[in-house]
Amino acid sequence: MDSQEVGMEIQLLPDFPPGPLDKYRKASSFDWKSMKLLLETPEILDYKMKIWKLIEENPEFHHSDNSLSLEEQRTLLMKRLYSFRKLHTLSSEDIFGNLHKPFALLSAAFQYDASFPSTICVNFVMFANGIRSMGTARHYQFIEDCEAGKIRGCFALTEIAHGTNAKGMRLTATYDPQTQEFELHSPDFEAAKCWAGGLGKGCTHGLVYAKLITPDKTDHGLHAFIVPIRDPATLQPFAGVLVGDVGEKIGLNGVDNGFVQFNRYRIPRENLLNKLGDVTPEGNYVSPLKDPNKRLGASLATLSTGRVSLITVSLSNLMRAVPIAVRYAAVHTENTQDAESSQAQIEGQWQQWQLIPCLAATFALKILSDAFCELITDVQIKSFLGTYKEELAALGPELHALSCAAKPLASWTVRDAIKQCINICGNCGYLKASGLGDIRNNHDANCTYEGENNVLLQQTSNWLLQLWKKSEGSQNVFETPLHSISFLKDAENVLQRRFVALSVEETVCPKTLLSAYEWLICWLLISTEKKLNELQKEGVDPFIARNNSQVFYARTLSVAYAERFILSKFWAYASSDSVEPALREVLTKLCSLYGTWSLEKHTTVLYQGGYAKGPQAAEMIQEGILLLCAQLKNNAVSLADAIAPPDFILNSVLGKSDGKIYSNLHTHLFQKPKTFERPSYWHELTSLQSKL
Amino acid sequence: MDSQEVGMEIQLLPDFPPGPLDKYRKASSFDWKSMKLLLETPEILDYKMKIWKLIEENPEFHHSDNSLSLEEQRTLLMKRLYSFRKLHTLSSEDIFGNLHKPFALLSAAFQYDASFPSTICVNFVMFANGIRSMGTARHYQFIEDCEAGKIRGCFALTEIAHGTNAKGMRLTATYDPQTQEFELHSPDFEAAKCWAGGLGKGCTHGLVYAKLITPDKTDHGLHAFIVPIRDPATLQPFAGVLVGDVGEKIGLNGVDNGFVQFNRYRIPRENLLNKLGDVTPEGNYVSPLKDPNKRLGASLATLSTGRVSLITVSLSNLMRAVPIAVRYAAVHTENTQDAESSQAQIEGQWQQWQLIPCLAATFALKILSDAFCELITDVQIKSFLGTYKEELAALGPELHALSCAAKPLASWTVRDAIKQCINICGNCGYLKASGLGDIRNNHDANCTYEGENNVLLQQTSNWLLQLWKKSEGSQNVFETPLHSISFLKDAENVLQRRFVALSVEETVCPKTLLSAYEWLICWLLISTEKKLNELQKEGVDPFIARNNSQVFYARTLSVAYAERFILSKFWAYASSDSVEPALREVLTKLCSLYGTWSLEKHTTVLYQGGYAKGPQAAEMIQEGILLLCAQLKNNAVSLADAIAPPDFILNSVLGKSDGKIYSNLHTHLFQKPKTFERPSYWHELTSLQSKL
Repeated sequence: MDSQEVGMEIQLLPDFPPGPLDKYRKASSFDWKSMKLLLETPEILDYKMKIWKLIEENPEFHHSDNSLSLEEQRTLLMKRLYSFRKLHTLSSEDIFGNLHKPFALLSAAFQYDASFPSTICVNFVMFANGIRSMGTARHYQFIEDCEAGKIRGCFALTEIAHGTNAKGMRLTATYDPQTQEFELHSPDFEAAKCWAGGLGKGCTHGLVYAKLITPDKTDHGLHAFIVPIRDPATLQPFAGVLVGDVGEKIGLNGVDNGFVQFNRYRIPRENLLNKLGDVTPEGNYVSPLKDPNKRLGASLATLSTGRVSLITVSLSNLMRAVPIAVRYAAVHTENTQDAESSQAQIEGQWQQWQLIPCLAATFALKILSDAFCELITDVQIKSFLGTYKEELAALGPELHALSCAAKPLASWTVRDAIKQCINICGNCGYLKASGLGDIRNNHDANCTYEGENNVLLQQTSNWLLQLWKKSEGSQNVFETPLHSISFLKDAENVLQRRFVALSVEETVCPKTLLSAYEWLICWLLISTEKKLNELQKEGVDPFIARNNSQVFYARTLSVAYAERFILSKFWAYASSDSVEPALREVLTKLCSLYGTWSLEKHTTVLYQGGYAKGPQAAEMIQEGILLLCAQLKNNAVSLADAIAPPDFILNSVLGKSDGKIYSNLHTHLFQKPKTFERPSYWHELTSLQSKL
Repeated sequence: MDSQEVGMEIQLLPDFPPGPLDKYRKASSFDWKSMKLLLETPEILDYKMKIWKLIEENPEFHHSDNSLSLEEQRTLLMKRLYSFRKLHTLSSEDIFGNLHKPFALLSAAFQYDASFPSTICVNFVMFANGIRSMGTARHYQFIEDCEAGKIRGCFALTEIAHGTNAKGMRLTATYDPQTQEFELHSPDFEAAKCWAGGLGKGCTHGLVYAKLITPDKTDHGLHAFIVPIRDPATLQPFAGVLVGDVGEKIGLNGVDNGFVQFNRYRIPRENLLNKLGDVTPEGNYVSPLKDPNKRLGASLATLSTGRVSLITVSLSNLMRAVPIAVRYAAVHTENTQDAESSQAQIEGQWQQWQLIPCLAATFALKILSDAFCELITDVQIKSFLGTYKEELAALGPELHALSCAAKPLASWTVRDAIKQCINICGNCGYLKASGLGDIRNNHDANCTYEGENNVLLQQTSNWLLQLWKKSEGSQNVFETPLHSISFLKDAENVLQRRFVALSVEETVCPKTLLSAYEWLICWLLISTEKKLNELQKEGVDPFIARNNSQVFYARTLSVAYAERFILSKFWAYASSDSVEPALREVLTKLCSLYGTWSLEKHTTVLYQGGYAKGPQAAEMIQEGILLLCAQLKNNAVSLADAIAPPDFILNSVLGKSDGKIYSNLHTHLFQKPKTFERPSYWHELTSLQSKL
């Protein structure tokens, strides 16, 4: 795209109306439109704007003035789902043309309403992708029906009492050669499949995991089956299927999460997804598995999709919450004892310290998410095509380790940032109309879905520890496709490094920070290993030893590993020659702030391990954070403008781009139903009064 | 109360039915009933049980199976409010007999439903207490009517655009000697009173703050007025009063927060609350104020009531959330790769580290809250009686400083603990029926009400810095009624202290921790002062200098001051000879854990200021936390039993005292309406499918 086209794209972004945010918009050191185009790329921005316009212009997508009941929310969601399918579908050509499109669509839709794309994902995407990766030609009709919207799927793995513990699952699928059917049976309620999105009310089919038992009573472990749940014509469940809705949740209430218990329920033999293993009509188990290690590597790569998606989903929430709080803080004047010194909240030190690092984290996660999304779409395509097996096998373990640390880090960062945003908006933030409560309540689940965060972090540290052990044989193990651990080759020297920065400026420089992170990771790696060895020497069982070296060690190691990777990606992005100087300057400051703010949480370890001594290190890190916050303060509104979706999508009375928070609140309160109405219970109340 | 009576009280507490929690209940080192009686005292426990029984046995208080609309929630709340008044009122004799009763009632009711006591407080308690403290005999009829439930009040101070900035308020009350009336006028929407609880739909009167203007156009500053808002017979607002409801909030939706704009609205001269200042019929301002400093001191003491209440309210939330998560974690088995090593979640290191410190914090805040509540009830009585002025004047500033730091610390601690509890419960925690989402959403506001937390923390550090300056004249300034800063007399020596503990046991000993805290506070105090002086030398305006010495300095100082006070109270309580040995042992461990866990957050400062050097300090603090968590793990269920309200009040499908989480979930899902019902939109959905 040449500069003329970029010019046209900029014209597509509307200017903001004049208002209370002008002061900061004028004080900004860069052009927000150029930043937005850089971040999103013109093609993707154009695509997102098109999606948002489709949504805004369709009456079925108007925001409701009233709170809706569970039933009403779901009715509306189903209508929107089918409306949207008619308005837009993303073809394979679109995806091949730009690998960012699937995640751009996900992100755009999440910013409108989290339940909406969640339901699309569980009903259509995950079901069809699951069949694609585990099924064979005999299952393609299901994919076609699903893509045509004739059936709706769900993905049922977890059981009530067994979480994601594969070996603990108790649903069985026993093959009966007489009828050539599998009989699904849940021994009790604790073995019911539970939480599956879409299962509660609307799905017709499930992609259900059960232990496959052959007639010789051999248990072949978990396999996936396509299981008819409800009659598509009537939405009544089939006999033998006891399926229900888990009811209201903290958030995401448009999604009907459900549970299902099977009572000797029979499905055809062909419904087994048989790419990895099959049962002959006679009841013999056969498997095409040849090189299980390579296959595991490749499947680890595709299994990272869910976690990578949740980074994007978390980011979508952050890209709404932060602009709301920044715009509010730039207009609302702070409470002081002294009216003369009244100033916008964002001028305050503690407010900057709460808010501006969240802005920096948004940019950091945006850069991470885009890098991951491109990678994972490519992985998916290659995996469906069945080629590039070697490449995927090499990429798999590293992508798995990275996404197992980056998803927890992203979802926690966003959770904590939303908390700060609510806090910054004070009483106003507590209004439902601020939008922040819903963003928070919808976001919560991201810390649990696709693996509980703490459990995932163990996967990462296990991988790092295994490689560390292997490296005794050869340092080559650190040469991985994504280069996330190449510095470990030089661990001995890295561990000799000390904090030597002589100024705040030097301290917050991304190079210094990356160097500190490398020391931190090496130190945590050897300390965790030492801890593990000590415990094992004491005769502690390996499982318990691993468990007891998590807090302050393995867990911190995984977090630091993800932070360093994000910081390195951010720094490469910010310092690229192709970025124009004004943007490079502000991106470098954001990168410095993200790195310093993240590293500050590890200051104790820097002292503990001898990297830092004396007061200077802590002081300079702290001063660096506050200095960068103060320097970025005048850019905060423009940075928020660069990441915020349009007002209709942002849907917050506090966060509108005109910054007129009081008059928008005024309008909202005067227009919403029942503001001035006498309560319906007035007569009861007055008679209660007089009866006393 | 003798041991026989205590024995009877123990009998009143029902034993738990056998179930999955037995394992840990049997492993406990102490008797939970004795602990509960120690914590609550037999009289207060008996009183709370009576209140809970009244609630449980009254059909109007049954929990609803469905989510209610805003209107339904409020209708129900009003009925409950008037029902409860008939069932129970707390007389002055009751309060004189046991100063803990008012807060015990508050706490018991909050654990049932936060909106319910909130509405009682705003409609009746705060309104009547406000009149008592600022009004005179001519206003007592309002108190009587309010206590009889004939009128309902609200407390209206904050304006839309001006927070709690007294000088920035813009509502005027201009006296007209011709008619002997005040004319209330809000110049625009930004000057509307806003957020007042009870104002939105139901109150008849407001206690409204406005700038009093006499006919000579002098502005005498903010004064409080009793303002009729709605006709009690019809609940219609009076002409000149534009009053509305702010609508749905993140939580506390039973409470009708409102806004009101006055348009040249007239009220009688007598409605001015005139204890502090009055206007004669002719329009002259007169004030009985003689010793403004002492009066300020005394009023600071009574003004702490709101903050102290919010500590109790925050604690009430914590005493629900923590038992839910502990009971869940003691039953639910953790996801492992390896079914053989399945174990209850609470056996895991990171789960202990997330959960057990929350349990320790609950006990710490319980002891703090009880100490504060007794003190503040005494203050209120003395203040209403108008005697003991000297005593109150001396107590005021310290109580103000303590409550301004303890309320933020308590509300944040609880907010973060609830987050951990949700996290521990995984998917189940995300269910509305877990109760955790509502606890969280209702709790949020405590971080903002009665002063935004960060703003309050500045009050505390300002007081400490002022005393520090004054101490140059005389060390006596550190001899305060609550002895919270007596160690500052010895600051010079305290600053020489170093971390010298030789073992983990010594590190976590409360004495060692208190000593470290004293060093920490002294260091933060002199460092904050140094920072302030540096800034002022650079010519920075004093307001900005104060602002720019908050983060990492003044703010941390206030938090550390509150933590040390809580720790010292906890230690005095736990080590008291009157506590039986089995309880003393576990309380001491909890006290150690609370102190170590709190101090750990300041480890960087310990290194930065030279208190600690080398790896040992950080390592022993970390090991201490993990060791105490592991030691307390087997006691966690009994500790939860000692703080949990009865099941009906706890109202969580995960937290029931029988520990049967799966069968309770089973019952809940099968009994709740619509679990198995076909969705009402089934026909629409099937026709959408076929239209494609």
